[in-house]
Amino acid sequence: MSHKLLILAQDKDQYRALIEEAQLENLEFATQPADDVDIVLGEPSLIKAALGSLPALNWAQSIWAGVEPLLDPAARHDYVLTNARGVFGELMSEYVIGYLLAHERKIFQRLEAQKNKFWEDSDTGTLRGKTIGLLGVGSIGAEVALTAKFFGMNVRGYTRGSETSKHVDMYYHGDDLHEFAKGLDYLVNILPNTKDTRKIINADLLNALPSHALVINVGRGPAVDESALIEALNQNKIAGAVLDVFEKEPLPKDHPFWTTPNLLMTFHTAAPSLAKDISTLFFENYELFLEGQPLMYQVDFEKGY
Amino acid sequence: MSHKLLILAQDKDQYRALIEEAQLENLEFATQPADDVDIVLGEPSLIKAALGSLPALNWAQSIWAGVEPLLDPAARHDYVLTNARGVFGELMSEYVIGYLLAHERKIFQRLEAQKNKFWEDSDTGTLRGKTIGLLGVGSIGAEVALTAKFFGMNVRGYTRGSETSKHVDMYYHGDDLHEFAKGLDYLVNILPNTKDTRKIINADLLNALPSHALVINVGRGPAVDESALIEALNQNKIAGAVLDVFEKEPLPKDHPFWTTPNLLMTFHTAAPSLAKDISTLFFENYELFLEGQPLMYQVDFEKGY
Repeated sequence: MSHKLLILAQDKDQYRALIEEAQLENLEFATQPADDVDIVLGEPSLIKAALGSLPALNWAQSIWAGVEPLLDPAARHDYVLTNARGVFGELMSEYVIGYLLAHERKIFQRLEAQKNKFWEDSDTGTLRGKTIGLLGVGSIGAEVALTAKFFGMNVRGYTRGSETSKHVDMYYHGDDLHEFAKGLDYLVNILPNTKDTRKIINADLLNALPSHALVINVGRGPAVDESALIEALNQNKIAGAVLDVFEKEPLPKDHPFWTTPNLLMTFHTAAPSLAKDISTLFFENYELFLEGQPLMYQVDFEKGY
Repeated sequence: MSHKLLILAQDKDQYRALIEEAQLENLEFATQPADDVDIVLGEPSLIKAALGSLPALNWAQSIWAGVEPLLDPAARHDYVLTNARGVFGELMSEYVIGYLLAHERKIFQRLEAQKNKFWEDSDTGTLRGKTIGLLGVGSIGAEVALTAKFFGMNVRGYTRGSETSKHVDMYYHGDDLHEFAKGLDYLVNILPNTKDTRKIINADLLNALPSHALVINVGRGPAVDESALIEALNQNKIAGAVLDVFEKEPLPKDHPFWTTPNLLMTFHTAAPSLAKDISTLFFENYELFLEGQPLMYQVDFEKGY
């Protein structure tokens, strides 16, 4: 039996070239939505827009980790949805470590000094011995934990209940959020967007952090109570924040984040979906699909991840 | 037999407190140069200035890696000189990885965009798969190599002849310098200052690098031909340079480096001598000294390292 694949992505030509090169068994390509398309690979919002014209849809592989548009209760949920996972851990780790080192090494401060011809040799910090707290320890969190241990950090993990990474020194769950935050040098959010994670970084949690703490959000925008973060930064309740994701993207021009002190933004670039990585994931899932096996990284439409 | 220690360092009070706390056997303190001082711990230039008033000097432990002032052929060489080694590898690795990630992640570019309220989501780079070339693979180079391998990089090492780190994928020696440089993404100098390493990063070597290469000098200032580097940067022959050390420090106000494009300076802060680290090294060497064993990290006055 032959399968028909529709690719719905900005870089669809690159995906098509990679998939053609792999010469997958019994796979044909469609160039637009059609009655016989049973597999879709693409961006969640583009897939959602096409759902009405894909009566035979059996499996949708998202090229992104976040699949919010497809979780809409009003949308069809009669197909298997898989998202991109397992490919972002290293990129996310590079991002987190990069900004932690930028902070410890005062690299922006030294650049400013250079512009003023000032020999800025004030003490530099180190990651060794610092404590990092990870909100969420899935495949990405585990990779960040591994990297943090490599640099000699103490690692705390806050999860719903799982304790799967052995690179986390201490786990926290449920009501332990304050205990988790106490004394952290760095707080990193990697949680998916669910009703339980919305505004998890709120005034309460920010107040529980030491004033020298740095907050990084590489998870999803809604995890941060944006007003509370602005207030915490304006009042120097924390040392700084690095945000990759936002409630609304691109960030509106009149948003206060553009000018909030000690706030760095990276415009949703922390862990790009590289066609090469995502294609490899698609190949592996297609093999399972042909064999009638459960696919990797299936999304539960109820739980949202 | 009792020994007398003189500490010659800016942070001598911190060193004294750490050493007193360790309650070393048969060790007394001197507060200024005296006839019975047989051990000195301190900064090379301060030690050199005191050499004439230390007739009984038996052993000098430098708190820095670089000991140039004490190598002066006109100075006394009738004592055992040990320098600080083995404690800088992790700090140097953090520094190198921090600036490589700053480069790949475009963190200065994104900060500029933020100031202009521009959503700067251009592609980010990754360390994975990149090739780093280490000029010098001693204890620091080995630590940088290990860290580079952790991030999935290919590692080349250029050494006089030693091939001690197993984290180096390919070694180069002697005349292989051009072969070593060919195709590098990053070139990192960690060599000590000797007659063979002066201006090793010259026009010739810079021309052998790809135009997207980043050069980092965390070794010693004289390793870089400063005029050649300025020319390479002005002509975009390489993508950028990050310099921690210089021919003359602090850098003179009229030095062209202050305004050379794509040049970042970090003012000799890459690997600070932390009193806690250096004291531990001193304790270990003092044990050996008491036992009449060879000390760790002895400097050969001829070779210069």
